[in-house]
Amino acid sequence: MPRIAYFGPQGTFTEQAARTFGDADLVAVETVPLVLAAVRSGEVDSGCVPIENSVGGAVTATMDALAEDEPLIAVAECVLPVRFSILVRPGTRAEDVKTVASHPHALTQVHDWIAANLPNATPVASTSTSSAAVLVQDGEFDAAVCAPVAVTHYSLETLATDVADVDNAVTRFLLVSRPTRVPEPTGADRTSLAVVIAHAEPGSLASTLSELALRGINLTRIESRPLRGQIGEYRFYLDLDGHIGEERVAGALAALHRNSNQVRFLGSYPKADQSPSVPSAKNTDDDYQAARDWVRRMREGR
Amino acid sequence: MPRIAYFGPQGTFTEQAARTFGDADLVAVETVPLVLAAVRSGEVDSGCVPIENSVGGAVTATMDALAEDEPLIAVAECVLPVRFSILVRPGTRAEDVKTVASHPHALTQVHDWIAANLPNATPVASTSTSSAAVLVQDGEFDAAVCAPVAVTHYSLETLATDVADVDNAVTRFLLVSRPTRVPEPTGADRTSLAVVIAHAEPGSLASTLSELALRGINLTRIESRPLRGQIGEYRFYLDLDGHIGEERVAGALAALHRNSNQVRFLGSYPKADQSPSVPSAKNTDDDYQAARDWVRRMREGR
Repeated sequence: MPRIAYFGPQGTFTEQAARTFGDADLVAVETVPLVLAAVRSGEVDSGCVPIENSVGGAVTATMDALAEDEPLIAVAECVLPVRFSILVRPGTRAEDVKTVASHPHALTQVHDWIAANLPNATPVASTSTSSAAVLVQDGEFDAAVCAPVAVTHYSLETLATDVADVDNAVTRFLLVSRPTRVPEPTGADRTSLAVVIAHAEPGSLASTLSELALRGINLTRIESRPLRGQIGEYRFYLDLDGHIGEERVAGALAALHRNSNQVRFLGSYPKADQSPSVPSAKNTDDDYQAARDWVRRMREGR
Repeated sequence: MPRIAYFGPQGTFTEQAARTFGDADLVAVETVPLVLAAVRSGEVDSGCVPIENSVGGAVTATMDALAEDEPLIAVAECVLPVRFSILVRPGTRAEDVKTVASHPHALTQVHDWIAANLPNATPVASTSTSSAAVLVQDGEFDAAVCAPVAVTHYSLETLATDVADVDNAVTRFLLVSRPTRVPEPTGADRTSLAVVIAHAEPGSLASTLSELALRGINLTRIESRPLRGQIGEYRFYLDLDGHIGEERVAGALAALHRNSNQVRFLGSYPKADQSPSVPSAKNTDDDYQAARDWVRRMREGR
């Protein structure tokens, strides 16, 4: 059985994401960098880390840790709706709840729901959603706002589930492993990259985007972070629609590699939503092959 | 001995250009399309035609004839300074010249010289610089403004040579043949193309130019002509610095072929001025090979 490390503690959304990647021994690890270190050392086969939150934005700790040190690649992704469960000790009724604990981020996302449904409760901050569950189990507080999976770990019961003020908030997670042969394209893939772009070269971001646009490649995400200790240099994190095994993506990656100070390939993996990555007109593998064949014929005078 | 057809009549700059392409049987042909037809039919091995004049601009008859019908490719170019000889019957002195004949284009380019040096002469138009020489030989006019080579064909002598109002006017000629294996790059080559670009696709010219710019390819010439019978479509004639045998040029050509309605390769041939075609940084053949190797390593997880 493969071993998957995940950003713990147990009972969080990251554990819930890790469970979507098939049967595995799950190992909770304290920080994102430590998850990645466990993968790099071979202590585990892969690691599950949050990369992006539709409310809070990029998870910069994950992005930086993936872009530096020994390369790792994403082999799968998981997108979870951010919908909480309210856990209580068995028998507790809504009107009994005087205190409700959770990580401040979680409390923010269920503020209206608490006001409407736990009218007597005072919110209390904890270090994680899981630690709130522990504190409820210990009798310190009355209710915890947790990832649904948390109920499997504690002697608590679910007072309410599917709780969220904002309907469509999601968090995206990646399963990363040591570099390995990239599986064949599935027809619904995403490719992640980190590209260092020097501010001092005017037009270098424009060139990077043109290499993608000219091949009809859609950018599904772009985030930038200043490069540590390098004034005026930025690392861009790009998610592309498509797979390194496809001609258009391979061509774009080669062009970026040729022109950039530093391009790091962060994996080509099936998209969680399985929406097809359809090459635009003139950008299928056959189109690229036909164009190369034409050049060859011209060179040969045929 | 190879047979070269050239745009006649004999005694013109085009004959003079044809003589620069080595020993050959030269055949004067009446029009540019007929020169190209003689090449296409195999009646001659190659054809010499003017393509561009630094004063008059593109020779549209040549451009259109190369872009249509059976493909031909340029295998060499020649750039001649536009400097005329003044031919007269033996013994004629400058002060005897009452009439000076030539093609109107030539007369325009020596207007000031005639005013200064043949003060008694009236300019007279002829159908070509050579026909002016014939008319002088026949005694109809006193002097002809001709290509220097004309003196070898007529019983005339050179009254003056190296004559031009504008110092640096040049005409560029191409030697074209039926498609044949393109010779290896010399390191100082030019590549000619005709690309059809639909006005209806916004950004298609920008895309075409970006494919070149992203590979550090210099455009040495761009001319456009409306496409006959196709409202809103244009054919662009492009001259690039570089050779189809080089990675950056081959990649750009393949991209243009993939995206264009119609790309016609018009040859890769040594530049007349022998100025080196140096790939810009990150655009050598080795850079392209290294980038492809990197993509392969990423796919294989190495």
